[in-house]
Amino acid sequence: MRNFDINEDPHRRYNPLINEWVLVSPHRAKRPWQGQNEKVTSGSLPEYDPKCYLCPGNVRANGEVNPSYENAFVFENDFAALKQEEIAFEENKKDTFFKAKPERGISRVVCFSPKHNLTLPEMPVEGIENIIYTWQKEYTDLGSVDYINHVQIFENKGSVMGCSNPHPHGQIWAQSSLPTEVAKTQNNLKAYLDKNGSNLLQDYLKEELKLKERIVIENDHFVALVPFWAIWPYETMIISKRHLTKITDFTEDEVSGFATILKQLTIKYDNLFETSFPYSSGIHQAPTDGEEHLEWQFHMHFYPPLLRSATVKKFMVGYEMMGESQRDITPEKSAEFLKNQSELHYKTRL
Amino acid sequence: MRNFDINEDPHRRYNPLINEWVLVSPHRAKRPWQGQNEKVTSGSLPEYDPKCYLCPGNVRANGEVNPSYENAFVFENDFAALKQEEIAFEENKKDTFFKAKPERGISRVVCFSPKHNLTLPEMPVEGIENIIYTWQKEYTDLGSVDYINHVQIFENKGSVMGCSNPHPHGQIWAQSSLPTEVAKTQNNLKAYLDKNGSNLLQDYLKEELKLKERIVIENDHFVALVPFWAIWPYETMIISKRHLTKITDFTEDEVSGFATILKQLTIKYDNLFETSFPYSSGIHQAPTDGEEHLEWQFHMHFYPPLLRSATVKKFMVGYEMMGESQRDITPEKSAEFLKNQSELHYKTRL
Ligand SMILES: O=P(O)(O)O[C@H]1O[C@H](CO)[C@@H](O)[C@H](O)[C@H]1O
Ligand SMILES: O=P(O)(O)O[C@H]1O[C@H](CO)[C@@H](O)[C@H](O)[C@H]1O
Repeated sequence: MRNFDINEDPHRRYNPLINEWVLVSPHRAKRPWQGQNEKVTSGSLPEYDPKCYLCPGNVRANGEVNPSYENAFVFENDFAALKQEEIAFEENKKDTFFKAKPERGISRVVCFSPKHNLTLPEMPVEGIENIIYTWQKEYTDLGSVDYINHVQIFENKGSVMGCSNPHPHGQIWAQSSLPTEVAKTQNNLKAYLDKNGSNLLQDYLKEELKLKERIVIENDHFVALVPFWAIWPYETMIISKRHLTKITDFTEDEVSGFATILKQLTIKYDNLFETSFPYSSGIHQAPTDGEEHLEWQFHMHFYPPLLRSATVKKFMVGYEMMGESQRDITPEKSAEFLKNQSELHYKTRL
Repeated sequence: MRNFDINEDPHRRYNPLINEWVLVSPHRAKRPWQGQNEKVTSGSLPEYDPKCYLCPGNVRANGEVNPSYENAFVFENDFAALKQEEIAFEENKKDTFFKAKPERGISRVVCFSPKHNLTLPEMPVEGIENIIYTWQKEYTDLGSVDYINHVQIFENKGSVMGCSNPHPHGQIWAQSSLPTEVAKTQNNLKAYLDKNGSNLLQDYLKEELKLKERIVIENDHFVALVPFWAIWPYETMIISKRHLTKITDFTEDEVSGFATILKQLTIKYDNLFETSFPYSSGIHQAPTDGEEHLEWQFHMHFYPPLLRSATVKKFMVGYEMMGESQRDITPEKSAEFLKNQSELHYKTRL
C-alpha cells in the first residue's frame, strides 16, 4: 500500500477556526474546463465617471450629492440590509421551527479614493493608510452605538463578486448580533484559549513561520499566508504578528505595515492572471460588546473566486453546498504561485 | 415603538437543521440592480449532439465509448475528486493546526436520459421514475462498498452553477467520511430525537402543513416547501410525508409521487422567469455506515441562484462569507410566487 502523499492524494483538512473540514483533490487541477467563462472587464476606466454614484460631486440614487472628497469617504448605504429603528418584539421561547428575531444595524459604504479607477494595488501606501484610519474611526464610532455589538468591514471586488460599481469601495455592516461565521470563530478561539491559555492564531502563526510552506509575504508586523485549511484556490489571510484583538490597537508602524502588505498582496493577486483580481475580503476581530475578548486576534480574509485564469473560476456548488467545500490545488502550491509573483504591478511593467 | 412585522422588518431566522442563522431583509428587494447579468442560454438544443461527451454512442475524454443507452446511464467520473485507492496513513493526534487525513471515494455521473435536450421538467414522469430507481440502485451498490459511509446524490444545473455540459445529468460522490454539512445536519437531527423522542423534519412538516404559508406543492407522499430558514431566494426542500430514512425505503407509489413532485417543482421553477432554471439540488438521507439512523428523514434541497429574473442572481459574497447568509425576499413571498406558477411548462404554452 502506498503511503499518504499530501501533495498528490485526495484528503480532508481541518479548519480549527470554524471546526469544519475541506476536501482537497490535488490531482484534479488537471481536468479540462468546458464550462462557463467569466467576462473580463478590460480597457481602462476614466479617473472620473459622471455616471458613477460614488465619484465626488455626483448625485446618488437617493438624491444626495457626494462632497468633492479627497481621501476615503464614508456614507450610509442607500439600500441597507439593516435598519436602525428599534422594533418591539416578544420572543416565543417554545418555538423550535419558527424562531425569528428583529435585527438592528447600520450599513455604510467606504469609498477608498476619489479616483474612479484606483484599486488598492495601484494606490500609494499613504492612500491605503488613510483607508485603515477610516476603518479605525468607523469601528470606534459604530462600535460605541449602544445596540451595536459587531462591526463587519468587508470589500466585494469585481462584478463576479456581486460588486455593482467598479469605483473602489468597501462596506461596513454593523449590527446587534454576532453573525453566524463570527460566532463560530469566536467559540473556537475561546475554547482554545480556555484549554491552552494561549491564542489560537498566535500559536498557528508561529508554526507557519517555522514551516515557511504557505507564507506569501512577511513584514515586521504582518504576515500574509494561504491557510492550511483554505477553501478558495487562492484564499489568503493576513495576521498581525503582535497579539491585537482589534484594528484600533494598531501603532502607527502597524498601520503602515498593514497598508504595505495590503498593497503587496493585491499586486501579487493582480499579477497572477494579469487581471484586476476579484475577491471578497473582510476583517475578523473582537466584537464591540464591551468585553475584552482576549481570544480574538486581528486577521483579514481574502476569498478570491478565480481558479485557473482571469476567466475560469471555482464553482462552490452541488457537492460543496450539500457536502463540504472542495478544492483542486493544494494550499502549498497556491502559496508558491502567489509568492513568486513580482512586487511590481503588471500594468507598470507593460 | 412599532411592533415587529416579519414581512417588513429586517430580522434573523434560525435553521435548526444546521444550527445557523440567516439575515432576512424584506425591504431590500426594492433596490435597483446595476451589477453583473448572467448569460441566458437561449435557442433550443438538438436531441443529439455529436460533440457532447454524455450523448449515447459518443467518445468520452478518456477514450471510452458510451453505449447507446435508452434510460438513465451511469459511469465513473473521468475526473473524479475522490479516488478508490487505499492509502497507508498514521494520524498525528497531537496536531491542532495541520490535521489532514486521506479520503477514499467513488464519483459517478448519472445521465438522466439519452436526449441531449431533455431536462427534468420536460421529461415524462416514467423517465423521472427511472432516474429514482437508478439513484436507489447506486445508493445500495455504493453504500455496500466496505469503506463507503456516505453517498451524496446531487445535480448542478445550468452554466451559472458550474455545470459544463447541458446534457441533463447529475452526480454521485460516495466516500468514507460524513461531509461537513451532512455531519452538522445529523448532529442536530440526533439531538432533537434524543430530546423529543420524535423526528425533527416530521414534526416540522406537520407544523408547515397546518400553517400552509410556505407550501409550494403537496401530494399523497411528498411536500415541496420553502423552508422558514431558506437562504437562497427560491430555495425549496422536498420532504417525504412518511418517516423514511433513505431512498431505498420508497414504495412504488412513493417513487411515482416523488417523480411527480420533481416534475411539478421544476416546471414551476422554469415558469417563474421563463428560462431553464439553474440550481444545485441534492438528497440528504441516512449514511451507509450500517447503523439504523432513525434521526434521518429523507429530503432533497434545491438551491437556485436566481433572484429577480433569468439574468439577475443573488451573490453570496462579502457579508455572507464573513458574516452570515442574507436574503432580500421573505420565504413566504417566494413560496407564494412559486405556488402560483402554472403546472404547464411555459414552452408548451407558447
Ligand atoms: O464535476 P463537474 O461537474 O465538472 O464540476 C462541478 O461540480 C463539482 C461538484 O459540485 C464542483 O466541485 C465543481 O467546481 C463544478 O464545476
Ligand atoms: O450592497 P451591494 O454591494 O449592492 O451588494 C453586494 O454585497 C452584499 C453584501 O455582501 C450582498 O448581499 C449582495 O448580494 C451583493 O450583490
